[in-house]
Amino acid sequence: MTAEQDQSCNALSALQAIVGVEHVLVGQAAERWSTDWTGAYRAMPIAVVRPDSRDEVSAIVRLANTFRIPLVPVSGNTSLNGGAIGRDAIIISVDRMRRIREIRPQARVAVVEAGVIVSALDDAVGQYGLTFPLSFGAAGSSLIGGVLSTNAGGANVLRYGNARDLCLGLEVVLPDGQVLDLMTTLKKDNSGFDLRDLLIGSEGQLGIITAAVLRLHPRAGEQVTAILGMQDLSRAPALLNRLQDASGGAVTAFEFMSRSYMEKVQGHVQGARCFLETIYPATILVEMSTTREMDLGSLLETGLEEAMETGDVSDAVVAQNNGQQRDMWALREAAAEVAFHRHPVVDTDIAVPVDRVADYLEAIPQRMAEIDAGFDDIAVAHLGDGNIHYTVWPSCDDPAIEAAFRAAIDALAVEMGGTFSAEHGIGLSKLPSMARHKNRVALDVMRKIKTALDPNGILNPGKTLPAEI
Amino acid sequence: MTAEQDQSCNALSALQAIVGVEHVLVGQAAERWSTDWTGAYRAMPIAVVRPDSRDEVSAIVRLANTFRIPLVPVSGNTSLNGGAIGRDAIIISVDRMRRIREIRPQARVAVVEAGVIVSALDDAVGQYGLTFPLSFGAAGSSLIGGVLSTNAGGANVLRYGNARDLCLGLEVVLPDGQVLDLMTTLKKDNSGFDLRDLLIGSEGQLGIITAAVLRLHPRAGEQVTAILGMQDLSRAPALLNRLQDASGGAVTAFEFMSRSYMEKVQGHVQGARCFLETIYPATILVEMSTTREMDLGSLLETGLEEAMETGDVSDAVVAQNNGQQRDMWALREAAAEVAFHRHPVVDTDIAVPVDRVADYLEAIPQRMAEIDAGFDDIAVAHLGDGNIHYTVWPSCDDPAIEAAFRAAIDALAVEMGGTFSAEHGIGLSKLPSMARHKNRVALDVMRKIKTALDPNGILNPGKTLPAEI
Repeated sequence: MTAEQDQSCNALSALQAIVGVEHVLVGQAAERWSTDWTGAYRAMPIAVVRPDSRDEVSAIVRLANTFRIPLVPVSGNTSLNGGAIGRDAIIISVDRMRRIREIRPQARVAVVEAGVIVSALDDAVGQYGLTFPLSFGAAGSSLIGGVLSTNAGGANVLRYGNARDLCLGLEVVLPDGQVLDLMTTLKKDNSGFDLRDLLIGSEGQLGIITAAVLRLHPRAGEQVTAILGMQDLSRAPALLNRLQDASGGAVTAFEFMSRSYMEKVQGHVQGARCFLETIYPATILVEMSTTREMDLGSLLETGLEEAMETGDVSDAVVAQNNGQQRDMWALREAAAEVAFHRHPVVDTDIAVPVDRVADYLEAIPQRMAEIDAGFDDIAVAHLGDGNIHYTVWPSCDDPAIEAAFRAAIDALAVEMGGTFSAEHGIGLSKLPSMARHKNRVALDVMRKIKTALDPNGILNPGKTLPAEI
Repeated sequence: MTAEQDQSCNALSALQAIVGVEHVLVGQAAERWSTDWTGAYRAMPIAVVRPDSRDEVSAIVRLANTFRIPLVPVSGNTSLNGGAIGRDAIIISVDRMRRIREIRPQARVAVVEAGVIVSALDDAVGQYGLTFPLSFGAAGSSLIGGVLSTNAGGANVLRYGNARDLCLGLEVVLPDGQVLDLMTTLKKDNSGFDLRDLLIGSEGQLGIITAAVLRLHPRAGEQVTAILGMQDLSRAPALLNRLQDASGGAVTAFEFMSRSYMEKVQGHVQGARCFLETIYPATILVEMSTTREMDLGSLLETGLEEAMETGDVSDAVVAQNNGQQRDMWALREAAAEVAFHRHPVVDTDIAVPVDRVADYLEAIPQRMAEIDAGFDDIAVAHLGDGNIHYTVWPSCDDPAIEAAFRAAIDALAVEMGGTFSAEHGIGLSKLPSMARHKNRVALDVMRKIKTALDPNGILNPGKTLPAEI
């Protein structure tokens, strides 16, 4: 036995002593954590440990410091950026910590552990007429810990904000094993630096989130969903503003799908319907909802009639029942499946100012064509947030082409005052973008904070922050 | 000349070289920065320097590092906590940096410098049908830099959030003089740690804010304001929820005034009217507004009639015109004047969970009476945020009584799951509270971050973070 193997053995025994033998997985039992959802990354961790409490998490983190073994926190393993890959590391999974500790309907908050499934929380609060409104394709398998540590977004950010905006309090195990209890239900707290927001979205670099206090919202009584066809996407932001103002801010989603996406999605969603008779350059899914008793349907129809008179909207279908509503969303939510059904694939998550989305989507295909004339692409976007998921497939399997695609997609976003990572975070796949485009001073500050809080580099090393050159 | 005086002289000459002789003030010219609005703190700074650009700010910060002279950033000097007092320090005022660089109505953002007056920005965007909705008594003199560095709140937080929620981008000079340019207009950006929110509310400890990108909101077309009298404050949160749900979230303010406040305020507001025939245990100012064409007035009246039938509300007056609306707000906005007209005074800014406000206000007078039977008090609250400004006057001038009052007020808030500082921050006056009640681990993390970014302790030393014991 080498000294290294010996050390590894000691660490595993110590882990078993903390969580119990059955919750330290190695070999085949750890297999399901060895790959990510996208299939782009594959690496066997040293082990997977599944603690059941924040105190177990704390003990594991202290142990990792003692043995100087990196820890990679994982929740639902739905990262699109390789964020939960555990090469040469111990994966620490929060999936056993799945208690909803408390629901306070009057105060409209829920206290939950990190392993609670996003959609399960939404189901649980439904009986009180409330909702946890974070909504995206993976909501049925992603966990609260993960959505907070990546500040997940999705289709309802327009109305309810991203994960950060839905979080009042946090419980976090810091890189040195200390427990930071910020489990407040307060709406206002200016007692010192905003550590909560620093930890949210830090991708497990600065701590492992073990529990949270989350905001709930009243469940909408009225809801209306429609699919619109537009010739000219550049008119969409003004249409969104008009619908928002006319409804007093009732628009909850305003989602774009490109022509090529609409053509391809039909092969991926069983019984998919496109709703409109022809496929327009821009298809928009709009949803409005409110707790108020009001006829949102006629309000939307009036808005759309006006937009058709001015030519902004060419055609529109309003969902007549829940089934149609679901079918409309099924179209949009198949985006990740459509993107990843074919490899190699370059998926992206850029954002530009809301009024530049149309410019971006007009300019980007030309840049792709200059790299690989045989490329194919799709685009969907959270239009109200300026957040575009542009996906491109090269005509052949050449890593240089993929890299050139990514670089060009990022560069154009940054040129337009945008970002190369809007809601998916950095993980592994966006490290080159981070190195190339992130403000140097911001990187310097991030590294100083990381070093101050994690001097041994225990938590999720080699991700989020590119190595200094 | 002593070595110290010599050093100070050199520093002043160097400052003059950066900003021009006329913008380095000493002696009588610096007088107006020697005291704070509350009158509780008084200290002559070494000098006041008034830079005109972020590059001048950066040069000044580098100079301060060279000479190891503390810098105290100041904006409108409206801090209620002694946050801008410059004892043994050079005060750096951003009041000359008052350009509104850009208003983008379609994108609903404004790009402004730190010295812009809050209400001036709101006025400037009014012509586009937009508003910058931060609203509090000092909005006519507080500056953007200050409201961001303290994460100011106020009466509209319920609907629009606090300063943090209204900020998309920041430009900050760091404690080492580097310029951190986070001037994005993006709604979503997950490219690394959330430095923006860490800097907002850090009270000039981690950087000096020089410019910001701010969110604007559509100006409400319909607005309705009313004064309600309630016998039982504990029924107010449910009333607020019902009004919010019935209006689709149109309630923008829900402000509480105590009986003793209503009695005293009439001596402070010229021609003050109490609107209701008698003074109830709880007076509520409610305001609803929306961009939607709808009859908010009848919606509110229906809600109030229901509340009067159930006995939740005893009496109500709805403002019939702008003049009455202004008079209602004048009642509420006189709170700081009423509090500080008499000395010694203990003003506070605590928050408890929304459903504990009535419990808090019921329990606190007894605790005061145990300390000083002759005390007098008032209370106002941003009820929707659980944020209470409880003010107490001791019967005699005894610092020990004042300290005991503060300690008891904080302690009860913390017992109820609340905070000793909801929106005013820490500054100097809340340092003992911070030392007594703030989570030890959170303080440890804050100190590590402060040391990592400001190793020379140049920015605003001796405030916000209590000394380690």
